[in-house]
Amino acid sequence: MNFDENPHRRYNPLTESWVLVSPHRAKRPWQGQVEKLANDERPAHDPECYLCAGNTRANGEVNPNYEQVYVFDNDFAALLKDTPDEKYEDGELFLAKTEKGVGRVICFSPAHNLTVPEMSEEGIRAVVDAWVAEYNVLGAKDFINYVQIFENKGFVMGCSNPHPHGQIWAQSGIPDEPLKKQNAQAKYWAKHNRSLLADYLEKELEKKERVLFENEHFVALVPFWAVWPFEAMLIPKRKMARISEMTSEERDALANAYKRLTVKYDNLFETSFPYSAGIHQAPTDGLPHEEWHWHFVFYPPLLRSATVKKFMVGYEMLANPQRDISAEKSAAILRDLSEVHYKSI
Amino acid sequence: MNFDENPHRRYNPLTESWVLVSPHRAKRPWQGQVEKLANDERPAHDPECYLCAGNTRANGEVNPNYEQVYVFDNDFAALLKDTPDEKYEDGELFLAKTEKGVGRVICFSPAHNLTVPEMSEEGIRAVVDAWVAEYNVLGAKDFINYVQIFENKGFVMGCSNPHPHGQIWAQSGIPDEPLKKQNAQAKYWAKHNRSLLADYLEKELEKKERVLFENEHFVALVPFWAVWPFEAMLIPKRKMARISEMTSEERDALANAYKRLTVKYDNLFETSFPYSAGIHQAPTDGLPHEEWHWHFVFYPPLLRSATVKKFMVGYEMLANPQRDISAEKSAAILRDLSEVHYKSI
Ligand SMILES: O=P(O)(O)O[C@H]1O[C@H](CO)[C@@H](O)[C@H](O)[C@H]1O
Ligand SMILES: O=P(O)(O)O[C@H]1O[C@H](CO)[C@@H](O)[C@H](O)[C@H]1O
Repeated sequence: MNFDENPHRRYNPLTESWVLVSPHRAKRPWQGQVEKLANDERPAHDPECYLCAGNTRANGEVNPNYEQVYVFDNDFAALLKDTPDEKYEDGELFLAKTEKGVGRVICFSPAHNLTVPEMSEEGIRAVVDAWVAEYNVLGAKDFINYVQIFENKGFVMGCSNPHPHGQIWAQSGIPDEPLKKQNAQAKYWAKHNRSLLADYLEKELEKKERVLFENEHFVALVPFWAVWPFEAMLIPKRKMARISEMTSEERDALANAYKRLTVKYDNLFETSFPYSAGIHQAPTDGLPHEEWHWHFVFYPPLLRSATVKKFMVGYEMLANPQRDISAEKSAAILRDLSEVHYKSI
Repeated sequence: MNFDENPHRRYNPLTESWVLVSPHRAKRPWQGQVEKLANDERPAHDPECYLCAGNTRANGEVNPNYEQVYVFDNDFAALLKDTPDEKYEDGELFLAKTEKGVGRVICFSPAHNLTVPEMSEEGIRAVVDAWVAEYNVLGAKDFINYVQIFENKGFVMGCSNPHPHGQIWAQSGIPDEPLKKQNAQAKYWAKHNRSLLADYLEKELEKKERVLFENEHFVALVPFWAVWPFEAMLIPKRKMARISEMTSEERDALANAYKRLTVKYDNLFETSFPYSAGIHQAPTDGLPHEEWHWHFVFYPPLLRSATVKKFMVGYEMLANPQRDISAEKSAAILRDLSEVHYKSI
């Protein structure tokens, strides 16, 4: 089957959903909205930034003079820990439940003008350590059953502050997307007594066409079922249900892979490449979750240039996601890109 | 349960998924991306527009001097009718199938400077008639099993041409989103021998708090499980599996409801309100589909003003959709808005 010529649907066995691939459509001219270029000229400290060290936030709190990573409660959290337990039900068609949770913000570095691809691997390793610590502390609370770690990067991704940072939303329920992945992995585990992603990784490492790079502990690849034009995934070679199972070497390897992937991203259109990225892993509900093989996904919106993105609208919202370039072509483009950041040359 | 104070999750029984509602979060200040205002000053005929009557399209074809509605094959269709039938399979984890289909473009009016809320009900009725005709003709082809009718409006929704138009993507497979709705409706039908949406509508008409307006044949409401800030739905009062079952009076009533809802939308922020909208209905696979109750959904992205939208990123992509204002509050705001277009005052 010619993936680069024929419109086709691909199956995502992790979420049990489909994507429509229309590779011939990449030729379509673009006359629509053009995004603003990211402003890359920033000072190392911005007195107006509520994430910079020593500055005062909206609620009057003062950030410490942190030197690596700084984590605090989101001043505008979508989830609150003191929400009373309530349920609203009227027949089968009206169902709501209050949700308890915690919102955290993680400043990745005091340097206002850095982003992950421009940080040192040691600096990124400190972010990884903070994630593990947060996962452990939040996950230990009995009203927290799932911890979503993520990074929104770039104005086009709704990120309101360019200071390098990520978020954690931890909550009592298990959200839909990780739950889908859990169900699919559990079925596979029950059937084969093997990890779905370990088997997938084995095949991808044989096929090679979607692999971007690997280090001792991680593989970076464009998944077969990628939705976003340059979607990618970091998968640990060893099956682990949660990030807290990583050894120190694995944490270093994750920092290395995170940096290398995002350097390639920046180099693609020579711009600070926007994305939403996040970790899917086992819930913190006290169960072993042997089925889980945690992984880190990257959903970047840009399609053709620093200013032309893919819109997931109309058909995508109403029917299913659609992409215009094959995963194999995207992987080939990303694989060939330098691992030296364009700004440092 | 206080829907306007407590963070909660609501269940969507049509798609069997959840939305996180964080009503207290509407107070959050916005420092992020601001959208461009829609350019409302357009000529009635634009010589550069490939949808205007008499103009030549990219492929050299000349549009006729149409007077109401004009439908043609999309010059850059994502689906093609001559795709060979092929399948790619490697174990359980790699599965792809070629997909056949047709892409159509529907110009709603020759007037380049109109939008649905500014068109006459007669003009919109002609659009409804064209949808029914297309659904019938496309649905009759044996390689077409599902017909997705939709409208992307506004640059912010990835729409590259402000000329009033919609699209149809018709294909051999049944896409995920309508399939979810089909499965949920089929379960409900099997259990109760009643339409899920008819039962839902009955309750909403009693409760009234989410109803925007009704006419003889349609109800406009903000669904209990709305994801987008001002998401709405037009539901026919009579259970019909597909739009082709509408009587002439019902088609007029649909045109009336489509106009009234979009006028309210434009009046909300006194701007040409962007959205993706589309019809979910029975597949054209030859089966009766008694479970289906067709409906028309509207997904508009604006949140606080003509230039500040809701971003479905990070948490939403990785976990589940999240909204900052309750469906009830949105409904109250929309219900109170005038049905006279702000530009006509
Ligand atoms: O077909 P258009 O208007 O050029 O393109 C727009 O609608 C399509 C269908 O919803 C999307 O796939 C595109 O991303 C969007 O830009
Ligand atoms: O929390 P922030 O960065 O202000 O807001 C951003 O990320 C959130 C979580 O993905 C989204 O809900 C918001 O729509 C987005 O603007």
